[in-house]
Amino acid sequence: MKKIFTLALCAFSANLYAQQKTISGFTAANAAKEVQLEQQFDKAISAKRIGENDKQLSAYPHHIGSPGGKAVADAILAKYKSYGLDAHIETYTVLFPTPKTRVLELTSPTKYTAILKEPALKEDATSGQAGQLPTYNAWSADGDVTGALVFVNYGLPDDYDRLEKMGVDVKGKIVIAKYGRSWRGIKPKVAYEHGAIGCIIYSDPKDDGYSQGDVYPKGPYKNEYGVQRGSVMDMVIYPGDPLTPGVGSTKDAKRLDRKDATTILKIPVLPISYHDAQPLLAALDGPVAPDDWRGSLPITYHVGPGKATVHLKLEFDWKQVPAYDVIAMIKGSKYPDEWVMRGNHHDAWVNGASDPISGQSIMLDEARVLGEMLKTGWKPKRSIVFCSWDGEEPGLMGSTEYVEDHAKELQQKAVVYINTDDTGRGFFGASGSHALETYVNEISQDVIDPETKVTLFERNKGREAVNTSSVKAKKEILDRKAEHIGALGSGSDYSPFFQHLGIPSLNFGFGGEDGGGEYHSIYDSYDDYTRFKDPGFIYDATLASVTGRATLRMANADVLPFDFQSLYSTINKYAGELNELVNQMRESTAADNMLIKNNAYALAADPTKKMALPVAKPEVPALDFKPLTNALAALKTSTEKLSTTWASAAQTNADHDKLNKLLYQAEQQLLSTEGLPRRDWYKHTIYAPGFYTGYGVKTIPGVREAIEQRNWVEAQQQIGVVAKYITQLAEYLDKTGM
Amino acid sequence: MKKIFTLALCAFSANLYAQQKTISGFTAANAAKEVQLEQQFDKAISAKRIGENDKQLSAYPHHIGSPGGKAVADAILAKYKSYGLDAHIETYTVLFPTPKTRVLELTSPTKYTAILKEPALKEDATSGQAGQLPTYNAWSADGDVTGALVFVNYGLPDDYDRLEKMGVDVKGKIVIAKYGRSWRGIKPKVAYEHGAIGCIIYSDPKDDGYSQGDVYPKGPYKNEYGVQRGSVMDMVIYPGDPLTPGVGSTKDAKRLDRKDATTILKIPVLPISYHDAQPLLAALDGPVAPDDWRGSLPITYHVGPGKATVHLKLEFDWKQVPAYDVIAMIKGSKYPDEWVMRGNHHDAWVNGASDPISGQSIMLDEARVLGEMLKTGWKPKRSIVFCSWDGEEPGLMGSTEYVEDHAKELQQKAVVYINTDDTGRGFFGASGSHALETYVNEISQDVIDPETKVTLFERNKGREAVNTSSVKAKKEILDRKAEHIGALGSGSDYSPFFQHLGIPSLNFGFGGEDGGGEYHSIYDSYDDYTRFKDPGFIYDATLASVTGRATLRMANADVLPFDFQSLYSTINKYAGELNELVNQMRESTAADNMLIKNNAYALAADPTKKMALPVAKPEVPALDFKPLTNALAALKTSTEKLSTTWASAAQTNADHDKLNKLLYQAEQQLLSTEGLPRRDWYKHTIYAPGFYTGYGVKTIPGVREAIEQRNWVEAQQQIGVVAKYITQLAEYLDKTGM
Repeated sequence: MKKIFTLALCAFSANLYAQQKTISGFTAANAAKEVQLEQQFDKAISAKRIGENDKQLSAYPHHIGSPGGKAVADAILAKYKSYGLDAHIETYTVLFPTPKTRVLELTSPTKYTAILKEPALKEDATSGQAGQLPTYNAWSADGDVTGALVFVNYGLPDDYDRLEKMGVDVKGKIVIAKYGRSWRGIKPKVAYEHGAIGCIIYSDPKDDGYSQGDVYPKGPYKNEYGVQRGSVMDMVIYPGDPLTPGVGSTKDAKRLDRKDATTILKIPVLPISYHDAQPLLAALDGPVAPDDWRGSLPITYHVGPGKATVHLKLEFDWKQVPAYDVIAMIKGSKYPDEWVMRGNHHDAWVNGASDPISGQSIMLDEARVLGEMLKTGWKPKRSIVFCSWDGEEPGLMGSTEYVEDHAKELQQKAVVYINTDDTGRGFFGASGSHALETYVNEISQDVIDPETKVTLFERNKGREAVNTSSVKAKKEILDRKAEHIGALGSGSDYSPFFQHLGIPSLNFGFGGEDGGGEYHSIYDSYDDYTRFKDPGFIYDATLASVTGRATLRMANADVLPFDFQSLYSTINKYAGELNELVNQMRESTAADNMLIKNNAYALAADPTKKMALPVAKPEVPALDFKPLTNALAALKTSTEKLSTTWASAAQTNADHDKLNKLLYQAEQQLLSTEGLPRRDWYKHTIYAPGFYTGYGVKTIPGVREAIEQRNWVEAQQQIGVVAKYITQLAEYLDKTGM
Repeated sequence: MKKIFTLALCAFSANLYAQQKTISGFTAANAAKEVQLEQQFDKAISAKRIGENDKQLSAYPHHIGSPGGKAVADAILAKYKSYGLDAHIETYTVLFPTPKTRVLELTSPTKYTAILKEPALKEDATSGQAGQLPTYNAWSADGDVTGALVFVNYGLPDDYDRLEKMGVDVKGKIVIAKYGRSWRGIKPKVAYEHGAIGCIIYSDPKDDGYSQGDVYPKGPYKNEYGVQRGSVMDMVIYPGDPLTPGVGSTKDAKRLDRKDATTILKIPVLPISYHDAQPLLAALDGPVAPDDWRGSLPITYHVGPGKATVHLKLEFDWKQVPAYDVIAMIKGSKYPDEWVMRGNHHDAWVNGASDPISGQSIMLDEARVLGEMLKTGWKPKRSIVFCSWDGEEPGLMGSTEYVEDHAKELQQKAVVYINTDDTGRGFFGASGSHALETYVNEISQDVIDPETKVTLFERNKGREAVNTSSVKAKKEILDRKAEHIGALGSGSDYSPFFQHLGIPSLNFGFGGEDGGGEYHSIYDSYDDYTRFKDPGFIYDATLASVTGRATLRMANADVLPFDFQSLYSTINKYAGELNELVNQMRESTAADNMLIKNNAYALAADPTKKMALPVAKPEVPALDFKPLTNALAALKTSTEKLSTTWASAAQTNADHDKLNKLLYQAEQQLLSTEGLPRRDWYKHTIYAPGFYTGYGVKTIPGVREAIEQRNWVEAQQQIGVVAKYITQLAEYLDKTGM
């Protein structure tokens, strides 16, 4: 009796709660139903099953093109089917290089041959398996080069400026760069632009080794032999199969000749461990590296060049492999041709218990739960599409080829693309289309953090308030009612949806309490994940509550929860940043020229040290931001009007089919037909991965990168371009009429 | 013929120059004479002779109480006499502990016995000599302790706050702290205050070892065995012989019992190398040290406590030794009872080619040159007194005992005390009484930097303009006509003159291009100095031009070049800082309390890590700065009036005896009879070494330290005290009348 009473009370309370809660885009009655549905969903999500998925799918190495990869795709297909979903595999054929020869030797002043091998550990059950990809960077050029070694810090453009000031150039030399501070592919690209003939990338223990904490297997950080594999494709030009830019790499697609593929590197590149890096770095002479370049190996970091010479020989098997995208569909009852898309890749560099299997395991449990709900007769209003991508690791192959292949259909049907990837313990992170900011906030203010028992939103607020330095900012954070979401660059499968097609996209995950050095190594294993990333899969289950809400709300909304006023204010903020950036550059250029004129650099320098004095730069001209300001004023007006239309629509029970379509297709108005300068695959005028940062986003990239490169003519021209597309969006939104 | 013509032209130019130049405190005619004198002085200074002095006086270990120390004092006496100066030795008898037993062992979880020994190097001729003091910290307690080890970063009060937040306390434990960020004596003092039973101090390679550059003998930085010796006397209570506070430690002076000497440490303290530190640190477990605590040893820095246990046993020979101060006098022709004092210590921890022999060698060459000038019939108007101090290293023994012994005479006669100590290559640094700022600027705008051939002032301007971040500040620096001098804390022999007696003091040196790790080790040798600190003794000769001008201008001035408007504006700036400090603390306390109230710290923390949540602090009350503001207003008026008096006096040929005496004794008005709270030896109300920084100065220390300690009652009371003495100075200066 008592038990039943308690349950009834619970149901009553939940019901009360459900009745009281509002959800954007839902009528009061439908919001109540939606809340109950979400409670049902949460209850059914199982941390245990997520853990079982993770163990099963990370049990063997399963990179693209491997037997393990095929087995994982088949297992995922079988799971979707067993959940009652309509699933199939779409296969693309893509180029994928694997190493045949890897030699790295220090040849002078002493000899050292790099071991290039991560050892098996008895504490890690899968670390000694056959079928592991060796440590390498995919899309390195074949090459056999010998040259003087130069240490280039993180290998970013600024680092080369600093080298120039030290009187060091890398022409004809082999560079060694640290992992970190940029996407890895930027390092060899910038090295090549500066004339280097080879590039070595290593993980300094300061960044993810012993300086950060105990090393694996004692702790989660990189041990001396750990190596980060990874793609160095020039993905900021275009991702996906290098031979089929812009089109799906179906079996018979027209392909470029490999030598014409602009995203394949021109010089050999190899990632190594700090065990292998230390003898090379210790052999360097020349200037001592600047203070902020030094890592924590027990050596003096010199820059070179000098006596230290290395020999790097790499040969690859440039073969075509199949990419198996597993697609599973739940048909919408009311709007079957409106697709709420949910994706996560399934290929790993090796076992990938975290990257990508943590996210994949969560998504599969979401699918299982929805499958169970289907069996009770429930159906979403809109279709839900689960996508388990292959070949993300070498360069978003599976998702990009799928997107390019289905571009037209997706631009018609895709309401949203919700991505996850590796995830762990800690704080909630969300990035994506800013028209979805309100919708994301309603979710993060609804889901409870399992460690602190407050909402994800409240927990983030706490952390940010502590970490912000100014008192004013602390107060603002504690008082805030909504949190900004981040902007998307690249690094996972949302990129083609978002930046190529303009489909509203989101990326979710947890992190911050799961630091480690396992990324892209053989130690990204089930043993590692369950000890250090998310023991008990507690946060994984919480992420399922987030993605579940995100999917269900978008699938069931009466009026789709897009809020273009948030998009407007975000773009307006970015425009303000650009203005500020130009002013700062003008001021710092003037200051620098003043210092040069006053000979201050020479007076500040130690004359016994070799140094190239900086040269005065042309002053920064005034840019005319008026077109952008005008376009934003128009967007402000349109979004205000739309907001009124939207609010009244959301209170009526009419069919909002036309309005909804207009809403989810609106972001496509921000795509430029011409694409970004020098990389026309990227069409979105507001968000792109940085040409010199890689994963890191550049907002209003056409203008921002022209400013950063001091290309004032292009910056002014791009202000016109972005203004044109913002105006286009404003005019498009006006169609919602009053 | 040609040669003679050239010389004549030179003389003519110099003469023209001399006639045009103004020097504060000199009539036009006397300024011209002074310039010629200084040119004569510069010409006679010999880098070669300075080098010879350095080689001779650093040839053997010569710490206080050693045969080498006696030999160096005798050699200096002989030199002064040979230059024709009236020289003698004043001997004091002081306590000086040297080690009998030094044992440091890791006893758990593994065994390691520290080697505590710097090896001889074939590249360093004096490194293998007999008579070296072993590596130790003077004024450590005797002790035999065993306890769990805790890593406390730099061992400052803030570090213990951080430990508390990590839930770690050091009660009954032995701490290991890094050298740096404070005077070393602060570390064991703070450790003791927190209940530690022993203290180990080591030099992390991040601070002055391989991370900074190549290690000795390849480069100048600390090799794995190098150890920094040094005093840990609680010198911020009082310096000098611990048994005779406030009085000269003449042979028969009344002495405290050793157990009553408050400046001797209560726990055993031992400095070690990073070779010896690594096994200890590697044995620690417990929380990983915060990011900014980690050094660059190839280990994960943990805080402890845990299984790591160490045994520290130290016994000292607490003997009385003679301190030989060598005093040499040039009698003034006009004002023999006005003394321009110039000092540098002569004792070293071992050979001390840099510390202190570089400065000592320069001073001896100044004396030699003045001796030569005396032989041509020249005489200074005022007396010049050279002081070569003994026992500076263990705690300013020689200078403090001399000052205490001659206090009354010095307060009557000492016009200025000009100190140097170790010095090297690079940028000019000057600190001292702010009434002397104008005088120092005239010197730094007159002496030429040997590397860049601009004035010392111009070179500093260049460096500062480059290193300042704001454009506005860069511009201000490039436009400035005068440079601020620093405020004096402690760390060399100016302290008793300045902070105990209120005698206007200055400290000069060069540095910034002479980085290394030789400080207080056996590697502070002639070999090291000539390779890395000031090859060719070029900057040493330049420093002689500075100190020579400083001495000669003060000795010959018609009106002494004191500018109390600079002192006023400096104190006014300090008062503004205090006000700002209280406001910042009020704001940050409120912010912190707000975070605590909102539970933000708990939300921001990783709940799997042990942590003590911060507790709300009482809000910061309003302090009444009015007494200080009023006093400063009075001082402003007085200094403006004085400035007029001074300017008209400086244009007349009258005897300004009364005005001059008033000027050089004025700073004594800022001495408080009661001294600083809890350390009444320190009388100066404007400058003192920080109670928790040691060498580092605290300006308006009574008020500032009370604020820092949140002792608001004392802060308010000290505002009254400092206001009283500033008013006293204002009234005193008013006596110059109109």
